[in-house]
Formats: sequence, structure tokens, C-alpha cells
Amino acid sequence: MQASPFNSIRLFESEPLCLDGGAELSPVDVAYETYGTLAADGSNAVLICHALTGDQYVASPHPTTGKPGWWSRIVGPGKLIDTNKYFVICSNVLGSCLGTTGPATIEPETGEPWGTRFPVITIRDMVRVQNALIGALGVKKLLMVLGGSMGGMQVLEWLATYPEKLHSACVLASAAKHTAQNIAFHEVGRQAVMADPNWQHGRYYSDETAPSKGLAVARMTAHITYLSEDALTQKFGRNLQERDAVTFGFDADFQVESYLRHQGSTFVDRFDANSYLYITRAMDYLDIPGRHEGRLADAFLDARHVRCCVISFTSDWLYPTIENKRVVHALNAAGVPVSFAEIETRFGHDSFLLDVPEMDRMLEGFLATAAETYEAEQSP
Amino acid sequence: MQASPFNSIRLFESEPLCLDGGAELSPVDVAYETYGTLAADGSNAVLICHALTGDQYVASPHPTTGKPGWWSRIVGPGKLIDTNKYFVICSNVLGSCLGTTGPATIEPETGEPWGTRFPVITIRDMVRVQNALIGALGVKKLLMVLGGSMGGMQVLEWLATYPEKLHSACVLASAAKHTAQNIAFHEVGRQAVMADPNWQHGRYYSDETAPSKGLAVARMTAHITYLSEDALTQKFGRNLQERDAVTFGFDADFQVESYLRHQGSTFVDRFDANSYLYITRAMDYLDIPGRHEGRLADAFLDARHVRCCVISFTSDWLYPTIENKRVVHALNAAGVPVSFAEIETRFGHDSFLLDVPEMDRMLEGFLATAAETYEAEQSP
Repeated sequence: MQASPFNSIRLFESEPLCLDGGAELSPVDVAYETYGTLAADGSNAVLICHALTGDQYVASPHPTTGKPGWWSRIVGPGKLIDTNKYFVICSNVLGSCLGTTGPATIEPETGEPWGTRFPVITIRDMVRVQNALIGALGVKKLLMVLGGSMGGMQVLEWLATYPEKLHSACVLASAAKHTAQNIAFHEVGRQAVMADPNWQHGRYYSDETAPSKGLAVARMTAHITYLSEDALTQKFGRNLQERDAVTFGFDADFQVESYLRHQGSTFVDRFDANSYLYITRAMDYLDIPGRHEGRLADAFLDARHVRCCVISFTSDWLYPTIENKRVVHALNAAGVPVSFAEIETRFGHDSFLLDVPEMDRMLEGFLATAAETYEAEQSP
Repeated sequence: MQASPFNSIRLFESEPLCLDGGAELSPVDVAYETYGTLAADGSNAVLICHALTGDQYVASPHPTTGKPGWWSRIVGPGKLIDTNKYFVICSNVLGSCLGTTGPATIEPETGEPWGTRFPVITIRDMVRVQNALIGALGVKKLLMVLGGSMGGMQVLEWLATYPEKLHSACVLASAAKHTAQNIAFHEVGRQAVMADPNWQHGRYYSDETAPSKGLAVARMTAHITYLSEDALTQKFGRNLQERDAVTFGFDADFQVESYLRHQGSTFVDRFDANSYLYITRAMDYLDIPGRHEGRLADAFLDARHVRCCVISFTSDWLYPTIENKRVVHALNAAGVPVSFAEIETRFGHDSFLLDVPEMDRMLEGFLATAAETYEAEQSP
């Protein structure tokens, strides 16, 4: 085995990680990146949680694709989340495939990749690992935890599980439970992967052939849900791909077809199909109100000291404003201070990753106030 | 070859069917059902156009599934479209797989199934075949042509291509062109079929194995677009499938997963994968305004004598009200008389197939008035 190309730390060696599903994992490798320096008083740590197919490279280039960090627009020296001021942590989630333990990892007992013997995990399990990581990094309390989409789900589990470790929390374009439509789209993606004969019930690691075609179809389907109808119309409409007329065939006549095929084919180079199954499953299992007989507010009763911020986007039909508002109402009902804004955008769910000045202004103000109040709280 | 189990007629024997794509087809078999009797003066003929995966069995049981006709709720003796009064015609569209010529049909020149050598067709090509069929049945002018979804697209092509053959026309939950999002969902479905190694570039007919897994994934994806988020929530929510708790595995824990898997697996028993490719392509190619430099009204200038009715549904996000309104505006701009209603439903695009009393009342009134005015027009 060659050395991991990722910065990682081995956790849960002496005590296993106890998962929501009842299984135990030991050890757990966690791949992570940090930016900036932890202040002597530990008061400047910001944890960023990534989305379904995201990774720890929030502000530095992705090792496989060479592309800039996925949120380098706002995270970095002198940027909105200023790494000259803040100590930013981002880790690859449990079950993923960029260095953190997941289905592609070697199972200690067998010496073979876990495949589908890997236990099914939850969003809360991911957060348990992050909690162990920040402890190992010497962070007692986070100035802020933030994330969009599945990242926002992790923030909600932080609020529900480790509120004492938080000073502030920010949720973007997210939800506290997966709806039937959310589950339906994920199930189609999983079925696409499993329909690929190269999947072989998850035992494809020793072969040359991964279930790339199935995974590409899964990604294409998901990608449609990340964009609004309006965004697709603005971006592509019925424009043709390098041709003057339709060809009366099954080539990618339309730009939108070519774009989707590209999204599918590039995704399979950087992502593991089994990880896709496990992480979508974790999202489908998310049902924080369900753990409290439907009363989401009860999940946040111990988070009254945490300053919260929730942002939704008008054009997001995957985690629409109504799901974000349910979170806001529950936080309010629990007595947790929360700012909320629904921001007008045309881009759809992906808005949180894009250049949205109104979002930036809100994040900037929220972070500055969080830092001030945290400092005031700590001064004697 | 065994005798076709379908009622069918052979057309385009002496003169070929000239397709929009430039190819010619000869002969063309058309499978169809009729209900009721054509009046001596020919004034009671109603043509119903079916949707993407529909068929000619509008009011009689499907030969494979044994299920009642897909619109038997409103078509039949004494029903809204009363087959004691009206002569109802419904034919399987060109390119489909229930008896009408399509990719599974034997190509005369080779003696083999067409497969992907079958020419790519358009919605207008489907309508050309229907026009030949009604001629062969002795119908000079239709009292009404109606259809929902892809059926509505055919109605629009009737209005644009053979307006002189129409007294009235009714379009339900449809559009005059496919949007980028419409194309995107279809492209994902086609890629799912083509990713199935059993597809073999369309040459699977001689084998035991059709690309069923890929086609099932395509159907599952499409099925999500036929229902509203609200309908999925009402129908399934996060209800579990015959279990008390999630299983921490990849079985269909949730009812919505089980439902989708069932939709996928039953579909493949009744539908041909290549037909799915060809018909989705025909829909993607639909762009009636594009044939008139963007002015949809210009397509309807010869239809001023045709009484029209357009119905959309609030919860339909596949062909939403705005696309139906574009049709209404164009008909108005062309001076074509048109009634329009947006009906409040929760069911999504499938509303036109379901029990929607407001739709029934509108169709009933429209049909009665169409019959009266047609009679008045014909009396000396």
C-alpha cells in the first residue's frame, strides 16, 4: 500500500466510533485540511462542512482535478472567511473517498476493501467524527460551524448533538429531514449505480472497471436537481452544440445534453460509486424531527447560547425555502437566536456555491458579530 | 412471424411517409382502437392522442397488463366522452411498440428489426400517420382532437399542420417546445438505457436480454417528474415499507423507494427500450415556435376556425402553466378562439389522467359546445 496522498489523522483507535446503526468502527482515518493558525486562546476556529460530493479542499486545489478549492471564492487570506484571522478546518466526511474511512478503505479484519460490508452511516455519525477531529486539533469550542446542503445538515446535527462546542452556526440551503422527493431522486441514482454490472454488489475495487456508467447517470440526474429550470433555460435554452441544426440522431445535439454528459463523465474520475451510495443513504436517513416525535425544536433546546443563521434561495427546489423555514421556526421555538434570509437568485440549489453578493454580505456580518461576541464572552 | 395481436392497418404502401428528418418510411403499420360508430355524416369523430408511454387502449384493457384503458375513467358508453354518441379513435404513435411501426419492427430491406437504424421521428411525423389513419377510416374532419402531455403536443401539431381537418382541439398539460430542463431529464433517461450493456446499440431483439435495468432507471427518473413534491409527500412522506425502523442497508426502506422500483420494473414488461429513446427524442425535438422564428402564433394562422381549449394544472412542474399559457397567447394572437383554465391540483403533471372534477366539467362543456356548433355548421 502506498502512502496516502491526503493529510489525515487516525482516530477512534482505543475507543471505537459507535454508529447510529449499531455498528462500531475502529480505527477511523480522517482526511482534513486546515488554513490559518489556531489562536492561543483557541477562539478563532471555524469548521466548514462539505456537501454530498464535496471534499476537504475548501480553499486549496483538488489533488485529482487540480481545480481551485470549492469555496476558495470566500475562504482564504483576506477573503470573507479570512484565513489570516480564522483557523479554518474542513474534513472529508465519514463514508467519502478522499482519505477518510469509507467503503473503499481496507477493512482491518479481512484486509480487503470494505465495499458494501461497510456499515451504513448517518449525518450524525459524520459529525461524531468531526467532533473527535477538532478535539485532536486542540479546539475546545468552535467560533462557527457552517455548511450548505448536506453541509448544512451536519451543522444541524452539531446543534443537536454538541451544542456546547459551538458559539455560532450557519446553515445554507439545507433541511432537517429528507422529503419523499429528495429520497426519490437519490434512490434513482443508487439504482443507476447498482444497475451497472461493473458494480458487482460493491466488490469492484480489485478490477480495472468501476461502475462508471451507472455513477455518471446518477450524477446527471442529481445535477438537474442542483439547477433551477430558469438557470437551465438562461444557460442553455434549446441552444445546439456546435451544429446548425438537429442531426436526427442520439448525439448530444443540445448544449444541455453535452453539459450533463460532461458532468457525469468528469465526476466518475474523482468519486467512488460506493461512497455515493453510502452518503446519499445517510442523507435520506436524516430526520432530526423524527427523533423527537416530530418536534424539531426539541432537538435544539440545549443550543440557546448558539448564534444561528439560516439562508435559503428562492430558486432552490431541492431544499426550498419552506424546509429552511422549518429549521428557523424550530430554532425560534427552542429559544435559539437565529437570523434568516431568503435570497433571490436564479441559479437553483447551487446558489450557495456561487457569487451571490447578498449572501456574502449576510455571512460577513454574521461572522464579524460572532467573532465580537465570542471575544466579549471570553474576556474576564 | 406470428400474427400481430393488435388491430392494425397498413398505410403508406404506394406513397412513402416523408419524415421531418428527410427519411422515408414504407409501409407503416398503425395499431389503433376505435370505440362507438362513425355517424353517417361523419360528424362525431374524436381523436385521442396518447402520451409518451401511453397506447391505443384508451378505453379497453391493455393486452399485456390487463389493466383498464388509461382514460376509461372518462371515455366509454355513457361517460364524459360518450362512445354511444362519439366515434373515438386512438392509435399507437409512430415509433412506439404496441403494433405501430417503430424500432422493434422488421425493416423490410434487411428482414431484421430496425433497432437504431430506424429513422429519428418527430411529433409532426406521428401526426402525419394519424392523418393518414383517419382518412383510411373515412373521417374527413374531426369533431375534436385532444390529448395531454405528449398527446397535447400532437394536438398542437394537428393545429399547425392539418387545421382544415379540425373542428375543435383540446390541449392538456402540454407545451409547444421542450425546455432545457425537459431535455435534460430525457437525456438522463436515454443515457440510463444506453449505459445498460444489454442495450448493445439497440440490437438486443434477438437476445433473451433487453436493457431492462437501464430502462427501469429511466422510467423511475421520469416518474418523479410526473408527480409533484406535494403529491409525493402526501402519498408517501417518509413512511417506511413494511418495517418499523430503517434497516441501515440499501433495501427499499421507504415506501417511495418501493413505489419507484415497482414503477420501473413493471414498465419494462410493457415497453421497448428503443421506443423510449425514439419517442423521448421526438419530444425533445419539438419546437413549433422555432419553425416560425420564435413566433408561435404564426403556426396557428390557418386555425382560426378551430375552437380550442387549453388546460394546465398548478402542481405540474414538467409542463407548467407558463408553457401552456404560451400556447394560449399564441392562439389568441393568431385569432384562434381559445378557452383556458389553470386548475388547482396537488397531483402534479399526472393530474390530467386523474379524477379532477373541475377538468371534467370543463371538458364536458367544451365537448358539448363543439358538438353543437359542428352540427349547426353542417346543417343546410
